[in-house]
Amino acid sequence: MIDRLVAKIQKTRAPIVVGLDPMLSYIPEHIQKKSFREYGETLAGAADAIWQFNKKIVDAICDLIPAVKPQIAMYEQFGIEGLKAFQKTVDYCHEKDLIVIGDIKRGDIGSTSAAYATGHLGKVQVGSKEYSAFDEDFVTVNPYLGTDGVKPFIDVCKEEKKGLFILVKTSNPSSGEFQDRVIDGRPLYEWVGEKVAEWGQDHMGENYSHIGAVVGATYPEMGKVLRNVMPKSFILVPGYGAQGGKGEDLVHFFNRDGLGAIVNSSRGIIAAYRQEEYTKFGEENFEDASRAAVVDMIEDINGALLRVK
Amino acid sequence: MIDRLVAKIQKTRAPIVVGLDPMLSYIPEHIQKKSFREYGETLAGAADAIWQFNKKIVDAICDLIPAVKPQIAMYEQFGIEGLKAFQKTVDYCHEKDLIVIGDIKRGDIGSTSAAYATGHLGKVQVGSKEYSAFDEDFVTVNPYLGTDGVKPFIDVCKEEKKGLFILVKTSNPSSGEFQDRVIDGRPLYEWVGEKVAEWGQDHMGENYSHIGAVVGATYPEMGKVLRNVMPKSFILVPGYGAQGGKGEDLVHFFNRDGLGAIVNSSRGIIAAYRQEEYTKFGEENFEDASRAAVVDMIEDINGALLRVK
Repeated sequence: MIDRLVAKIQKTRAPIVVGLDPMLSYIPEHIQKKSFREYGETLAGAADAIWQFNKKIVDAICDLIPAVKPQIAMYEQFGIEGLKAFQKTVDYCHEKDLIVIGDIKRGDIGSTSAAYATGHLGKVQVGSKEYSAFDEDFVTVNPYLGTDGVKPFIDVCKEEKKGLFILVKTSNPSSGEFQDRVIDGRPLYEWVGEKVAEWGQDHMGENYSHIGAVVGATYPEMGKVLRNVMPKSFILVPGYGAQGGKGEDLVHFFNRDGLGAIVNSSRGIIAAYRQEEYTKFGEENFEDASRAAVVDMIEDINGALLRVK
Repeated sequence: MIDRLVAKIQKTRAPIVVGLDPMLSYIPEHIQKKSFREYGETLAGAADAIWQFNKKIVDAICDLIPAVKPQIAMYEQFGIEGLKAFQKTVDYCHEKDLIVIGDIKRGDIGSTSAAYATGHLGKVQVGSKEYSAFDEDFVTVNPYLGTDGVKPFIDVCKEEKKGLFILVKTSNPSSGEFQDRVIDGRPLYEWVGEKVAEWGQDHMGENYSHIGAVVGATYPEMGKVLRNVMPKSFILVPGYGAQGGKGEDLVHFFNRDGLGAIVNSSRGIIAAYRQEEYTKFGEENFEDASRAAVVDMIEDINGALLRVK
């Protein structure tokens, strides 16, 4: 799956991923009203609004980008109906030939991690039949439980030719509380990064491992160090745009081949119509604002990468 | 919610929680066959089998125990249908006056943790209406992202009078890989434990905090240390039974008041009918085997607690 991601990045010339993390408050009123008219102000109504919003955005940007990253929490908060919208979104993005990174941040003891891996990347056995439940291409994984919490995910990835992004250094302000603590002279995130590199050797694609890492755009210096600790791991970089990261901060997340990182923006793209730069499109044409924001983001990152070449 | 848990533990004299983590392979053939007859070998069929299995077990043991802990991964692997069975199980356990600890191990950056907290403990706003999606009483949380990943859960807990159990030292074999690493002379799990105590001060019940911790039964020495680090935090102790923990290992997880810990057993109870001790009940009467296993577990733990008094 990492080889497919690399090929799609090369084809689109866009090392970016769009986070489909819709809060209801981002969704233009005309979409919400229409869904509520049909389903009432219910969980099904909210889920329909999310789905209609996602669909419009995906239609508007799918030719520009290699991948999307739906954040499952934003769907899970609406219960079963929300999760149906998550599943619909994953399936629709596949129809549009997009790679889907399920941002699920799961992680548990062995047999439980195996169940999550089965549900999101693999196939579950029911009697003599097999079913894919959510069927993402990559998922994010929390490493706090150590190797035997991660290994079941890797096993399923091998079977299904899929991949992972494992949390190493997260983008949030208090990520340092535990992740930066120094152990034998080096911060915890470096130790985790080293493990990611080790786990990754076990499931290699052509030039990169199927097992990648998450490192926040908000910590560019640490990104530079981690790039070297995990030379064969793709880095999924959240925190661009709304969380404060800029193109020039991100160059050291990439390798010299211009690959090795994929930068996520969520709110900055899906709620672009609310930013001053893009208000000219109007709320009615929010998807055009999203498309313009994608074009600008690609230019920002590629420009920064060209300047360091 | 912690006060309700304490009251229920005192009433039942059972500091235990039963993990409702059904794998299809645990479910007796007659139940599976019946569900498959009705729904086919489908995800809906699997979910129905899980639900029928849970219901029988809950009916057989609900008068003996204060709480249950459904592990959401075991439902999530069957997709939307599985999650419907999760929701049904949570609701049914509430009908039976059981406290429900959702073992979800979520944790993310601020706004995303807020969405998980809303979905599992709180109410989500849809237009002018509010809905509870999954509505557990407690959930488990992964602390790797630090305070701002945990705080949104605590905020919802305060509003809804609910609680958390935060992963400190997990029961699995490789939990030490990161959790035991020494930082300024003390292992990471102690630093996390200290944070749990600090977070917990912010949301206190009568004698205990609504913010508890998870510490594996498989590490009794560490449990002893952590008991002192977090004197006001209830400890949820997985790893009893199938994972190897025994009653006598667990006494130091408790405070002198005989409270402060709640011990989980999953497979040891729900699949008791397969253990030599309980085969006499027969697969057809699996729920009676579960009831006997609950009685034995309570006796084992209370016996061990009495011996140290």
